[in-house]
Amino acid sequence: MDRIAEPSLALPAHVNGARLWQRLMTLAAIGATPRGGVCRLALSELDRQGREQFTAWARELGCTLRVDAIGNLFARRAGADDTLPAVATGSHIDTQPTGGRFDGNYGVLAGLEVLQTLNDAGIRTRAPLEVCVWTNEEGSRFVPVMMGSGVYAGAFTLEHALSARDTEGTSVREALAAIGFAGQAPAALADGAPRLGAYFEAHIEQGPVLEDAGVTIGVVTGALGQRWYDVTVQGMEAHAGPTPMRLRRDALQPAAALMQRVVAIALDEQPDGRGTVGQVSVFPNSRNVIPGRVRFTVDFRHARAEALARMDARLREAAAELARPGIEIQVEQVVEYLPTAFDAQLADLVREGARRGGHSHQDIVSGAGHDAVYVARTAPAAMIFVPCKDGISHNEIEDARPEHLAAGADVLLHAMLARAGVA
Amino acid sequence: MDRIAEPSLALPAHVNGARLWQRLMTLAAIGATPRGGVCRLALSELDRQGREQFTAWARELGCTLRVDAIGNLFARRAGADDTLPAVATGSHIDTQPTGGRFDGNYGVLAGLEVLQTLNDAGIRTRAPLEVCVWTNEEGSRFVPVMMGSGVYAGAFTLEHALSARDTEGTSVREALAAIGFAGQAPAALADGAPRLGAYFEAHIEQGPVLEDAGVTIGVVTGALGQRWYDVTVQGMEAHAGPTPMRLRRDALQPAAALMQRVVAIALDEQPDGRGTVGQVSVFPNSRNVIPGRVRFTVDFRHARAEALARMDARLREAAAELARPGIEIQVEQVVEYLPTAFDAQLADLVREGARRGGHSHQDIVSGAGHDAVYVARTAPAAMIFVPCKDGISHNEIEDARPEHLAAGADVLLHAMLARAGVA
Repeated sequence: MDRIAEPSLALPAHVNGARLWQRLMTLAAIGATPRGGVCRLALSELDRQGREQFTAWARELGCTLRVDAIGNLFARRAGADDTLPAVATGSHIDTQPTGGRFDGNYGVLAGLEVLQTLNDAGIRTRAPLEVCVWTNEEGSRFVPVMMGSGVYAGAFTLEHALSARDTEGTSVREALAAIGFAGQAPAALADGAPRLGAYFEAHIEQGPVLEDAGVTIGVVTGALGQRWYDVTVQGMEAHAGPTPMRLRRDALQPAAALMQRVVAIALDEQPDGRGTVGQVSVFPNSRNVIPGRVRFTVDFRHARAEALARMDARLREAAAELARPGIEIQVEQVVEYLPTAFDAQLADLVREGARRGGHSHQDIVSGAGHDAVYVARTAPAAMIFVPCKDGISHNEIEDARPEHLAAGADVLLHAMLARAGVA
Repeated sequence: MDRIAEPSLALPAHVNGARLWQRLMTLAAIGATPRGGVCRLALSELDRQGREQFTAWARELGCTLRVDAIGNLFARRAGADDTLPAVATGSHIDTQPTGGRFDGNYGVLAGLEVLQTLNDAGIRTRAPLEVCVWTNEEGSRFVPVMMGSGVYAGAFTLEHALSARDTEGTSVREALAAIGFAGQAPAALADGAPRLGAYFEAHIEQGPVLEDAGVTIGVVTGALGQRWYDVTVQGMEAHAGPTPMRLRRDALQPAAALMQRVVAIALDEQPDGRGTVGQVSVFPNSRNVIPGRVRFTVDFRHARAEALARMDARLREAAAELARPGIEIQVEQVVEYLPTAFDAQLADLVREGARRGGHSHQDIVSGAGHDAVYVARTAPAAMIFVPCKDGISHNEIEDARPEHLAAGADVLLHAMLARAGVA
């Protein structure tokens, strides 16, 4: 563990919020949609333009650039002792098809703003600093999601990621080559990619908690674990008219009951438990036909693995209870992410940064996945959340207030500086 | 009311079941699907072939043919007193896109089999007999459904029906002309089409009641009234991860509760009440997004109008009860058919025919719409149901047993003969 420097009062407490906003708007113009959002899919021509804008800015700031084999970008500002592991920050710049201007982009540009603030103040850090742009966080075009950080952390192999194809049949390998970002540096930590000394990620909350509480900074102490399921209820399709109630095997009715149990199970695990049925498919989905089959998804999240195990068991119990002769219910788990605890010392630095900048703050757990969740498997990591309007993201109307975005970058500045040390 | 003749023991009690089956299989070959069903959409080239097969058979039996302006066909066997209104039977020969061999076709061919049985026995009836083929009962290609009988009964105008277009933009008028069945005879009773003296329709049950009870003949005493609704639940779309349970406006949860109330309401109106949610659309229907909007359909059926009114009121009450700030629920009625009571004297003839033929029977109410429901607005009408396998129809695997089909035609023979009188 590096020694943590206590920043003196002479060190800058604030970034340049206007400059940060300007960069956000410049990047948002690449792939801008008529409704005010951004469509910049991973490894597309627009992603190339976004990446070149990032590298141009990073070079202006005096950084060296490293591109790895999965297309992750690392802009490095040398430290006084360049043998120390880098204190890093970053996020991603790919977006959803109808995405917003801030998701991901904010974390990357807040990193550049921290570097420029340090340049302006003439401060050299002891450890080097890096700003990371992780490839394909969104997973809209290629799965798995959080691809670049996942390869880095060893969640799946480089080869698995490079072989993924979009709906048109283009592979990640081909798309990386086409946009000129198939780098030479090793992508996986296991293959020799450098281990980070610390990783901070600033991000819009993507939820309503901070806005609801009127708080500016979320000190993210961890990320919820997730368990995703496909549930299939099989009954028997029949005509709505001629089939009396007593002779029906309506698949929708037990499905509807189970959908309600999903929420009831989550409500029994408050405040962290979350249960969502997001997708429902009814067959044959005709107005006057009794549904013969219903498929729906379940998304359970919780901060503690034992709570997720309880939720899993109760879902399966409820399914067994609702099944009966002629009604079969299958519950298949399709995804599992374990809960992540972020590094407590880094979270302290975030908390301290908020206090120092005079920004209200509260602890919060991330409900969504982020690159920081994978990086946390390899290095101390923490996140900084700022409010987004109405908690909405992955949407063209995604919005955030400039003063909140600046506040988050202030906190990032403090935390990185404290962690890297002043030379 | 015509005098009803008491058929003497010398009159034929049975049709030729093998011949009926043979005609069913011959007609089913026109538009046969690989999976054993039939696809013969209304007013298609295959429908033309089916219609020409029918008219060829009818002419072989010595009938005269009438084609009206909506393409309904009437094969007429003269009576001793041809000024009497015809005692008619029939159904339709158009099918669903993945329809079966019996739905509709059986009622038409049972009618021809009755005429041939009378020919073979050398029996002349007092009133003329007619076998009707109603245009576009299924409504798969053109709406409204039950088009030919609906025009006849004045449920909607001839012009409305002729102007209906399929998804390719072809109108009923054009399709009738293209297949050569745009007839000259008036189609609507109000425009001078002849009033029928009675109308019987034999049909597979399309439900599981007779099979479940082990009974051969359903004496159909009426048809359920129907009320159809579109329900919209509006909440707020949000991310499944970052949005805590207490800050959600999940549209699916009240929707799921209301779907269960639909069934509960029907269960409180047994044995006739039916409540079905057949179609569900969730927006945006993504695994990790809390649904912002859910639309679903409600199909309520009951034999009594006052019960349907009660079901309607309770649905609206339930919707009001489940709405809350941030969750709006709209219930819109989109279709209403009043319950139909068939003619009691004709039902008696059906019952008597079953007894005479030695076939088990029970009273039953039709849950589905049939041409007979429209014709019943204009003349005494009744229906004869026979079991279909597993209650399944509108499906390529639709099936019925030859002995049941023959039994239904026996009953039709008796009922028509009794109604028309022997000369």
